[in-house]
Amino acid sequence: MAVYTEVGEAELSAFLTRYDVGRLLSYKGIAEGVENSNFLLRSEGGTFILTLYEKRVNRADLPFFVGLMEHLAGKGLSCPLPVQPREGDALGELAGRPAALFTFLEGMWSRRPTADQCGAVGKAMAGMHLAAADFPLQRANSLSVDAWRPLLDACGEDADRVEAGLCAEIAAELTELEANWPSDLPKGVIHADLFPDNVFFLQGELSGLIDFYFACNDVLAYDLAICLCAWCFEQDGAFNVTKGRALIEGYQSVRPLNAAERDALPILARGASVRFLLTRLYDWINTPANSFVTKKDPKEYLRKSRFHRQVRSLADYGVTMDFRTA
Amino acid sequence: MAVYTEVGEAELSAFLTRYDVGRLLSYKGIAEGVENSNFLLRSEGGTFILTLYEKRVNRADLPFFVGLMEHLAGKGLSCPLPVQPREGDALGELAGRPAALFTFLEGMWSRRPTADQCGAVGKAMAGMHLAAADFPLQRANSLSVDAWRPLLDACGEDADRVEAGLCAEIAAELTELEANWPSDLPKGVIHADLFPDNVFFLQGELSGLIDFYFACNDVLAYDLAICLCAWCFEQDGAFNVTKGRALIEGYQSVRPLNAAERDALPILARGASVRFLLTRLYDWINTPANSFVTKKDPKEYLRKSRFHRQVRSLADYGVTMDFRTA
Repeated sequence: MAVYTEVGEAELSAFLTRYDVGRLLSYKGIAEGVENSNFLLRSEGGTFILTLYEKRVNRADLPFFVGLMEHLAGKGLSCPLPVQPREGDALGELAGRPAALFTFLEGMWSRRPTADQCGAVGKAMAGMHLAAADFPLQRANSLSVDAWRPLLDACGEDADRVEAGLCAEIAAELTELEANWPSDLPKGVIHADLFPDNVFFLQGELSGLIDFYFACNDVLAYDLAICLCAWCFEQDGAFNVTKGRALIEGYQSVRPLNAAERDALPILARGASVRFLLTRLYDWINTPANSFVTKKDPKEYLRKSRFHRQVRSLADYGVTMDFRTA
Repeated sequence: MAVYTEVGEAELSAFLTRYDVGRLLSYKGIAEGVENSNFLLRSEGGTFILTLYEKRVNRADLPFFVGLMEHLAGKGLSCPLPVQPREGDALGELAGRPAALFTFLEGMWSRRPTADQCGAVGKAMAGMHLAAADFPLQRANSLSVDAWRPLLDACGEDADRVEAGLCAEIAAELTELEANWPSDLPKGVIHADLFPDNVFFLQGELSGLIDFYFACNDVLAYDLAICLCAWCFEQDGAFNVTKGRALIEGYQSVRPLNAAERDALPILARGASVRFLLTRLYDWINTPANSFVTKKDPKEYLRKSRFHRQVRSLADYGVTMDFRTA
């Protein structure tokens, strides 16, 4: 949950005069998004999401994020569409922060994703990858393989307070990942954070993708590897092969993986689990006790990292070996 | 800000089948209310507020609160109206907690109330007092004068960590308040927490009152005394007599105070400032550092308490002595 910035009615009303949305009727801070302040706003013109970008988001990246949402929505993908002001840029300023107004997407995120929902998210992600293929802006992945060791170093010996030996275990895994990280796979724009709370469903159908604030240019199959971590484990920590299969086959029904991508999926998933392990570990160690940010347990991703290290092929993810052999 | 309870879509959809509001379209936890979890909910039938009552609210009091809102809305007062299910009670159960669905009120609360807004809230409060006159349920004020010394005792010597000598200063004030607390003034249902964040304005007009979860039977003028504390001080701590006059005259334009009420207003305001001083002090001392509840500064109400102790008559609140002499 997050509302970091208080916004007054007068300044908000002034901000809205840039848009053809009529007069302000109400706005409520909502518990959505961890990096920015979000408000559900109602005006005579309808219902919107107002986002204020806080300091953890680099201002130089905002044109990429906002432009990507415009681009994807323009291709028919269901994601928040930045509302265009009568004049100037969709990205404005409010309460001393960059700010933008977005269309509101109906739908609910799934607290307990089903295999059908895993299939739907695979399809939608592949659709996003295809729709973004001609998006002209570029943004490097600031949380890819070369960012992980500095994160581990920043955690230092505090990592071992989470579990004895953790620092050494991650260091050894990083050595392997750095030596074997694939570099010749198809690249493009990835979402890079497509967790269940960023995917909405409505009456059984996927109704939209949100929160593109980690999107970047990287290996496309890495995005799928992130979803293998985020969608396919049960509460008890077990990997669900039915969900794994549904996710991967859903993806392939829209954008088939080539042989090199399929072979690389286990190491990409090892990398994805370490990436989230490290950022959670860093936040766990560095978030002040009196912060109102809910800390996420790094151990969840330690267990996932260990699982993916055991994986030898897509069969361990539930995909039969003869599926779509290229 | 507060969302204490996670609600799943399946259980929420099941809960909504009690009502004629169509299918669920979306719901977002909102940063409103400090005692309960609130969600802004959209269904095919419109926009609503869903409230889940958390443990700080006594279940036995809920029929009073919900019934009061029904009663007031039925009299034309703009406040959230509990949506009636097709069968049974407006108070249901969701996620293991008592829960109710309310109509959504447009409007924004004023971060910096103006004198006009003080006048409007005085009028609206008097209107509420009159509209509640025939409300049949009763609820004692659990935070009235006899509750204050136990609160101070619970704070103990920790009070002096906020300011040296604070414990003795409050104890002396309580002795005076207990000896002189008025008991023969007109009573009725009061809101008891009508702070600016509980009053909405839209296009310059007061559009609604919310959050009746401290409402109770008590001295009517005590409600006005609370507003003198909550609405009429500037950020720098100074009492604004223009706002004080607007508030009191706004109230009297709907329900004139009798002479005893006018005479008692200073001591009622002393009591009101001590009541909020003590609950803030208690929360300040007892809220764990890692809680995501924002702690409110008790010293703000210490300064207000000291101001009201200097007040000799309504003239000090900006009301001229010859105003409406009864």
